[in-house]
Amino acid sequence: MTIKIGIVGYGNLGRGMECAISQNEDMELRCIFTRREISSIKPVTEGVEVLSVNDAPHYVNEIDVTVLCGGSAADLPMQTPEFARYFNVVDSFDIHAKIPEHFSNVDKAARDGGKTAIISVGWDPGLFSLNRMMSEAILTHGSSYTFWGKGVSQGHSVAIRSIDGVLDARQYTIPIEEALISVRSGKNPDLSTRQKHKRECFVVIKEDADHARIEHEIITMPDYFADFDTKVYFVSTEELAKEHSGMPHGGVVIRSGKTGRGHENNQAIEYGLKLDSNPEFTACALAAYARAACRLNAEGAAGCKTVMDVPPAYLSRETSQELRRKYL
Amino acid sequence: MTIKIGIVGYGNLGRGMECAISQNEDMELRCIFTRREISSIKPVTEGVEVLSVNDAPHYVNEIDVTVLCGGSAADLPMQTPEFARYFNVVDSFDIHAKIPEHFSNVDKAARDGGKTAIISVGWDPGLFSLNRMMSEAILTHGSSYTFWGKGVSQGHSVAIRSIDGVLDARQYTIPIEEALISVRSGKNPDLSTRQKHKRECFVVIKEDADHARIEHEIITMPDYFADFDTKVYFVSTEELAKEHSGMPHGGVVIRSGKTGRGHENNQAIEYGLKLDSNPEFTACALAAYARAACRLNAEGAAGCKTVMDVPPAYLSRETSQELRRKYL
Repeated sequence: MTIKIGIVGYGNLGRGMECAISQNEDMELRCIFTRREISSIKPVTEGVEVLSVNDAPHYVNEIDVTVLCGGSAADLPMQTPEFARYFNVVDSFDIHAKIPEHFSNVDKAARDGGKTAIISVGWDPGLFSLNRMMSEAILTHGSSYTFWGKGVSQGHSVAIRSIDGVLDARQYTIPIEEALISVRSGKNPDLSTRQKHKRECFVVIKEDADHARIEHEIITMPDYFADFDTKVYFVSTEELAKEHSGMPHGGVVIRSGKTGRGHENNQAIEYGLKLDSNPEFTACALAAYARAACRLNAEGAAGCKTVMDVPPAYLSRETSQELRRKYL
Repeated sequence: MTIKIGIVGYGNLGRGMECAISQNEDMELRCIFTRREISSIKPVTEGVEVLSVNDAPHYVNEIDVTVLCGGSAADLPMQTPEFARYFNVVDSFDIHAKIPEHFSNVDKAARDGGKTAIISVGWDPGLFSLNRMMSEAILTHGSSYTFWGKGVSQGHSVAIRSIDGVLDARQYTIPIEEALISVRSGKNPDLSTRQKHKRECFVVIKEDADHARIEHEIITMPDYFADFDTKVYFVSTEELAKEHSGMPHGGVVIRSGKTGRGHENNQAIEYGLKLDSNPEFTACALAAYARAACRLNAEGAAGCKTVMDVPPAYLSRETSQELRRKYL
């Protein structure tokens, strides 16, 4: 049976989703919903319909699950509950402090509509969350660490672009090697923000702009840079396009635990990702959880879930028997 | 609410289980069941009852879940189904080829008794299986690799001990660094058995035994050593006890996938374990899944499951709301 999918929003993540669907033989991209001018959207997949988000309710019988690919700040808080009333949905909502409110809104809408929603799918939140949770449930005594990068942080890149005189910028978050070594040694160190990550910024500025002033504004920016060792490199538009146009990311979640009568044994669990394309990987996770949302709904599980609630087998298109044979 | 646990079998794993229970505040070791002479068992936990396995059916109302800590070859094929008729159970059955038969036997017994069983819990099979399965469901196009070690293989150690003239032995399985580097580079190499792992053997022999003959018998032993580069070191009983008495193990599961229109982006998921004590870690996993077995049973889910069927949240003692706040 083919899972018919609707993509909502066609930015980097939406395009990644289109690609992920093409890599799953049991999935079909039914249509793309957009809030933009319909004619402005040019899907890569030949013949796929582009529709206004406003028309979505007319397609309830033609779509098994919609994947919300908008932004967490402006789009998802409204869109996910709206769509969850009519469709099974998955999203990658990632504003930690607002997850309880988002969960509650989506849960209510999904229950009202008898649909299944899975929110905050992706790698962090998402697979990293799952690994933090499972690792701590298994190794109850120990310390947990998350390192991000090396990778591009969109939020930090945008923050730099807001500075007067800056034309464009790309920011990399980089884990500090000594900190990783210390954690992997089983020493369970206490690490400050500055000890865990450093930041590198590649910045294009206006011809007459003041390098020193811009560098100072970046490295002293509260929340974004002030607590980190930050290096600023001024580059040309051409160099930025050539060397820094990708969207790599990744990181590691490490649980360093102790077992034994005297807590004498180190036991470490490490989950790491090394991604050439952050949005394409997030889309791959969304695709697998979209499959799970359909299956949960078929079993009657209405309401909102997260990755922690989903039986892992539901991510796969294979039968339980086949999964046991292949993976156990 | 306290989860009352019965341990069945008191070898390395059973002792690890006793320790794992002491690290989980919501768990209590109710008793240890043994097939041996009861007086021969000396639990570390003060006051804990030691009982004959034959008396187990009398304790159905006093135990929430039993953890089967016997061996996969001789004990679990009989014991897990027997116990699953009366109790929720978890085991770490690890003979891959016999898992379908074991699953079927345990499933029938558990359904007959209205109990929940989770088999093949541990790290491989177990957490490694889970990661292989999830990684392939997410990254559908790519190659998968499992490396084991550096760690002690009991099976290989026992095989060496069976050779005439050998008094004792300890065998380490070691991943080959070049293979790991090649896999992590995203090249998706085809690797032979010999290219992935090597073996090191520390062997104590009788005073008059023939070193050359024993070394030859080891490195040419079919299945166990013939397909690997194997190094044999002859050591004294004292050195073996001093340097090689631990039970470290671990390994990594790597999924190296491709995404993008032209499969131009590498995406890698790596799950790794570095364990000072293999049995204590396996016991920690069993403890978390024992909790899940109780919760599944309380929801009415009778029958046999594996790690792939269990919603990860069920491993934790915390509420779903708390898990979302803490880990998402």
